[in-house]
Amino acid sequence: MAATKKKLSIVSFSGDFDKVIAVFTLATGAAAVGYEVNLFFTFWGLNTIKLKKGRAPLGKGILDRVFNFLMGGFGNLPLSRLNFLGASPHLMTYMMKKNNVATLAELVQAAKDLKVNFYACEMAMLILGVKKEDLIPEVKEVLGVAKFLENSEGGEVLFI
Amino acid sequence: MAATKKKLSIVSFSGDFDKVIAVFTLATGAAAVGYEVNLFFTFWGLNTIKLKKGRAPLGKGILDRVFNFLMGGFGNLPLSRLNFLGASPHLMTYMMKKNNVATLAELVQAAKDLKVNFYACEMAMLILGVKKEDLIPEVKEVLGVAKFLENSEGGEVLFI
Amino acid sequence: MAATKKKLSIVSFSGDFDKVIAVFTLATGAAAVGYEVNLFFTFWGLNTIKLKKGRAPLGKGILDRVFNFLMGGFGNLPLSRLNFLGASPHLMTYMMKKNNVATLAELVQAAKDLKVNFYACEMAMLILGVKKEDLIPEVKEVLGVAKFLENSEGGEVLFI
Repeated sequence: MAATKKKLSIVSFSGDFDKVIAVFTLATGAAAVGYEVNLFFTFWGLNTIKLKKGRAPLGKGILDRVFNFLMGGFGNLPLSRLNFLGASPHLMTYMMKKNNVATLAELVQAAKDLKVNFYACEMAMLILGVKKEDLIPEVKEVLGVAKFLENSEGGEVLFI
Repeated sequence: MAATKKKLSIVSFSGDFDKVIAVFTLATGAAAVGYEVNLFFTFWGLNTIKLKKGRAPLGKGILDRVFNFLMGGFGNLPLSRLNFLGASPHLMTYMMKKNNVATLAELVQAAKDLKVNFYACEMAMLILGVKKEDLIPEVKEVLGVAKFLENSEGGEVLFI
Repeated sequence: MAATKKKLSIVSFSGDFDKVIAVFTLATGAAAVGYEVNLFFTFWGLNTIKLKKGRAPLGKGILDRVFNFLMGGFGNLPLSRLNFLGASPHLMTYMMKKNNVATLAELVQAAKDLKVNFYACEMAMLILGVKKEDLIPEVKEVLGVAKFLENSEGGEVLFI
C-alpha cells in the first residue's frame, strides 16, 4: 500500500452541470495531493468531453441526431436539480466567480494540467453515436468496462 | 489481496433506464473478467427485479397502491435525463440493437448466466410495500445494510 | 487490515429525500456494526445539515437569496423521482411509520448517537453562500477535498 500511488477513479455518468463540477472538484483535489486520477466518461457524461456543440452532427441517421440533440455538449450542461430554462448553470458560474471558486472551465483545464486521465466508454459511444473524433484530444483511450476496472483496481471508485 | 477474488458491489438505487443499463453493464463486464459481483437493489432499483408490471398489486392499502403506481416494474423504466412520454427508453433500446450493443433484457440475462448475486434491500421493501414473492426468483436473499457491507467488504462499492 | 477499524465514507451530494434516507440508512447501519462513518455534505446535500428553513437568510445578495430558495433546508427535501407538489416525502414518511421503519429524523438522530462524523464541503458552501453558523452544531469540520480523501482513505467511499 505505502509503495503504490493512491488512486481515485470516477465513472462520470451524469451530464448535469453541478455533478460535473463535483467530478472535476474531486479529480483536481485528488490529483493536487498526488493521486493518480482516472475519469471514465459514459452516457451523458460524454458531453463533458465533446469537442463542440452542434458543429459536426454526430452519426448520420435521424435517431443519431435526436440523441445529438439530447447531448448538448460542454457549455450547455443542465443543472440536476432545477434549471430555469438554462439560467441556473450561469447563475452558479457567476456565484463561483463572485466567491472566487474555480469555474467548471477552469476545473477542466486544471484537470488537464494535473495529468488527470480522461477515458471514454466504448459502449456508451456506440449507443449514442459518438465517435472518437468528436471528443477532445485529451481523451487518452476509448475503453470497455474490463479495462476500466483494471485501471481503477486498488483505489477508490465513485459513480457520479 | 492476490489470493482473494476481486469483488464489485453495487447499490442499485435508481429505477432510471439508463442507470440500470449502467448497473448491468458494469456487473456483467466485471463478472466476465472473473469478479464476484453483488447487486443490492433498493428503492426504485427494486423495479428492476420485480416479477411483472401491474399484475399482482403489491400490498393491500391505498398507499401501497400509490407506491405501486410509482414503481412501474421492469419494462417500464424511465430515462433519467429526458423521457418524452416514455419514448426515450425505446429509442435507446433501438439504438442499442442498431449498433449491436446488448439491450437491458440481454444484460440482465447475462448477469444471471454469469452468476451475479442479486440481493434486495429489506428496509426499502418494507417502506414501499414490496414482498419477496413479488421479486424474480434469481434474488438470492433479502438483506439489511450490515449484511450487505459484510458481503461487499474488501472490494469496490458503487452507488448508482 | 484486521487491526484497523472498517470505514465507510459518503459524499452526500443530493438533497432528494429518498437519497438522503439512503445516506443515513447506510451510515447508521454501518456505524451500528462498528464502522467509522464519515459523511461529507456538499451542494444540495448541505440542506440536510442546515439549521432551519428560511429563518436566517444565508448570505446577503439577491443571488444568495435565489440559491437560498433553491436550498430549502431539512424538512423540505424533495423526492428524486416524483414529487407531487411535496406530497411524496410525507407519503414516504407515513409509509415508514406505518411499516415501523425509522423515519429520516430518527435516522439523523441515530447517526448523531452513533458518533457518525458530519463534515461540510468548503467549496460548495462558498458557491452556495452557506456559512458555518447556518449548519447544525454536530458538523465537526468544514473540509476541502484533500482532507476528505485523507479521512476516507482505506475504506469504502460512496457518492450519493
